[in-house]
Amino acid sequence: MRLRISAAFLLAVTTVLYSESPRSENAPSQLKNDLAALRDAALRDDYAYQQVAHLADNIGPRAAGSPQAEAAVRYVAGELRQLGLQVQLEEVQVPHWIRGVEAAELVEYPGQAPGTTQKIVLTALSGNAPTPADGLTADVLVANNWDELKTMGRAKAAGKIVLFNVRFDQQKAAAGLASEAYGEAVIYRTTGPKVAEQVGAVACLVRSVGGADYRIPHTGWSEPAGIPAAAVTSEDAELLARLTAQGRVHLHLTLTSKTGPAVTSYNVIGDLKGSEHPEQMVVVSGHLDSWDLGTGAIDDAAGVAVAMEAAQLVQQLHLHPQRTLRVIAWMDEENGGSGHLAYAKDHAAEFRDHVAAIESDLGVSHPLGFEARISPSALPALRPVQEALQSLGANVIQLTTFSPGSDIEPLAKSGVPAFGIMTDLRTYFNYHHSAADTLDKIVPQELRENAAAMAVLGYALADMPEPLPR
Amino acid sequence: MRLRISAAFLLAVTTVLYSESPRSENAPSQLKNDLAALRDAALRDDYAYQQVAHLADNIGPRAAGSPQAEAAVRYVAGELRQLGLQVQLEEVQVPHWIRGVEAAELVEYPGQAPGTTQKIVLTALSGNAPTPADGLTADVLVANNWDELKTMGRAKAAGKIVLFNVRFDQQKAAAGLASEAYGEAVIYRTTGPKVAEQVGAVACLVRSVGGADYRIPHTGWSEPAGIPAAAVTSEDAELLARLTAQGRVHLHLTLTSKTGPAVTSYNVIGDLKGSEHPEQMVVVSGHLDSWDLGTGAIDDAAGVAVAMEAAQLVQQLHLHPQRTLRVIAWMDEENGGSGHLAYAKDHAAEFRDHVAAIESDLGVSHPLGFEARISPSALPALRPVQEALQSLGANVIQLTTFSPGSDIEPLAKSGVPAFGIMTDLRTYFNYHHSAADTLDKIVPQELRENAAAMAVLGYALADMPEPLPR
Repeated sequence: MRLRISAAFLLAVTTVLYSESPRSENAPSQLKNDLAALRDAALRDDYAYQQVAHLADNIGPRAAGSPQAEAAVRYVAGELRQLGLQVQLEEVQVPHWIRGVEAAELVEYPGQAPGTTQKIVLTALSGNAPTPADGLTADVLVANNWDELKTMGRAKAAGKIVLFNVRFDQQKAAAGLASEAYGEAVIYRTTGPKVAEQVGAVACLVRSVGGADYRIPHTGWSEPAGIPAAAVTSEDAELLARLTAQGRVHLHLTLTSKTGPAVTSYNVIGDLKGSEHPEQMVVVSGHLDSWDLGTGAIDDAAGVAVAMEAAQLVQQLHLHPQRTLRVIAWMDEENGGSGHLAYAKDHAAEFRDHVAAIESDLGVSHPLGFEARISPSALPALRPVQEALQSLGANVIQLTTFSPGSDIEPLAKSGVPAFGIMTDLRTYFNYHHSAADTLDKIVPQELRENAAAMAVLGYALADMPEPLPR
Repeated sequence: MRLRISAAFLLAVTTVLYSESPRSENAPSQLKNDLAALRDAALRDDYAYQQVAHLADNIGPRAAGSPQAEAAVRYVAGELRQLGLQVQLEEVQVPHWIRGVEAAELVEYPGQAPGTTQKIVLTALSGNAPTPADGLTADVLVANNWDELKTMGRAKAAGKIVLFNVRFDQQKAAAGLASEAYGEAVIYRTTGPKVAEQVGAVACLVRSVGGADYRIPHTGWSEPAGIPAAAVTSEDAELLARLTAQGRVHLHLTLTSKTGPAVTSYNVIGDLKGSEHPEQMVVVSGHLDSWDLGTGAIDDAAGVAVAMEAAQLVQQLHLHPQRTLRVIAWMDEENGGSGHLAYAKDHAAEFRDHVAAIESDLGVSHPLGFEARISPSALPALRPVQEALQSLGANVIQLTTFSPGSDIEPLAKSGVPAFGIMTDLRTYFNYHHSAADTLDKIVPQELRENAAAMAVLGYALADMPEPLPR
């Protein structure tokens, strides 16, 4: 999950929707039974966990353009074929970003012990200019927000390393507003380097976007700027803020990342053909690429695994939905979105037959339900889904105006009903884009709940009497 | 804080001691007033925080033998002189351990993507043999405890990299038994490398001793073994356990740490001479060296700062205790204890005049009271201390049989009444010995509470009518 700005007030919404308790008197009883069977099968199945484990542990980090991403493509395609799906690999030209050396040390600062330097922990942000191979050295200027930098302007910022020291609001995240907290902070990561460049900075640092205090940096994408850019840990951001308040702070910074020639990679697409309307598609999806620091278990091997599990459960239960269930393992969600852009280009003519699209890219903590960019008139048709997921507490449907997933954004924008699995995000951003995104962060039973949500919604959309109204 | 094995059951003890509510009818009212004044002054003073901030932020990591440790010696000596204390630097020959390169990658393992390796996050343990400069490569053998390794024996372990995958019991730590949890796990760090060597291992890895799950390794001392040794993160330990369960795991390991020639360093000693019995000493202390990964804020700049604050407060309030209050900033607690061993050698003849010793080396979260290696007959004389600290909830005195601090162990063993400030340790070991031991981990008000505990106990011991009975 790359970038999401949401004004969602989950608690409030939850209350509202629970009070509209779903009724299913009108739901065809066969569909109701099938959804219950899918949910129950999901809750006792380990297929999704095995898939995450293989992607995260055995293949490992899967940055777009890497051999691991290539191996993941082959692996998922093979697994989907074993499930009996019709599998296509659809070409995508992906950027190939190579992290290189990333190091920083304070070389001059107030109270420094003679003959010493101090290490600053950071990680490069993708797509920006490198420093010279032996680094650059400049004074640090700290800005706590856009306005502070604007006020200081080029007069103070020119020739400096600008640090945006913007705190991720952990209290807000703990209160159920993690997407909002993330949105408020991540904008400095995505556009900070460009803004710093515009006032003459020689490099840009941003405070890592995450709520933990274990001195881990969080990487990510930013709008390509002509200067080097990196994320420092929250601890190092605070240290730089304290030291610059005392006097001049001179930092030596080495970031030798580069973007190599584009690499041919693939979106993996597996179709379980519909029995009545095979041309009509319901997309169930996650993204196969990850950042390179961790093993991308929660972001987003888990999303791919949950989508694969939806198809696996339909096969396991010998169900035959009317419409095609299309599993997509997207490539390059993280570093520019080339995968979904290629899909949008190649499949634009078929978007009218995409009856819905679902993405799982917010980790797999306990699911609360779905964010949905749909017409309110579609809500009654979703009541069987809510009923099937009510026992899990995963029956919220929260209407949004934005796309509830970055890979399904082209579909959502063209009017395809679009859903994202909404999870308990209270700790998600503490691990997201860091070395700590590893398999142990996944609670198997919560993963199963997410698989239940994906399978139930995906199957319902593929087998309900009529497609959702748009 | 290096190594402590405690069977302390804090909750139980707390209950018992609170039920013996302290009475002070017999305490001289002047002492009672002085203790209350010290407590209140401590709770509004920022001197200790300023000291920690300077040591952690401005001087930074202070490994024994480093220029930063040298700078810290000069700095603390200067500060103590400014307080009006008689300051001596007492020579210590300290080991000079240099971390060097530390890197590991899986080069062969089940399900590996072609042409890829996977990074393992680790940090070297001090005092062990290095690998060759270009590393060594061997299969990994996982042992979950001593017995498993013993059962596998030399037949399985010879030529292997042995991993001790022993979990720090976070539930136990959260329940107030952190010292016990630490003791159970850290024994594998301290003696694991030697045990692995004895069964023919070519290197030893231990699972980091700490309860957080942010992929951070925790360094530390181990009994010098003839093989290389490092601590992997809990995530990497789990990954190695999962992969070895699937098949052969071949790891390339590079650890080029070395121990250079011994370096002359110092214990910093500052005396506030007693008005009646200047030859009688009460030691208030913490240790000045730290590990090199973080800035050693909680381990143990804070302890030194709290000891300095005790003297500062006595001066600020123009108090004149009968006995000498001796501030000691110990050198090299972490990497062998050469500082306190030198002190024990140089001052053995004066131990009979050391009427008590206090150490702060368990971080500075909320203090609960003191661990005390004292005669039970000394308890009545400590009631004014308990009364003064009762409003802070810092009035527990828990009798122990071991030394309640590693630097004061020679004093404790020779019969000097010995105290350690007992703190809320629930999260201490999550940060301890890691890069995340930084200034932000200190809550200023909790630091002040620790300073209050140190000042009140230190002054009471220095000014009570008779020295504590032994």
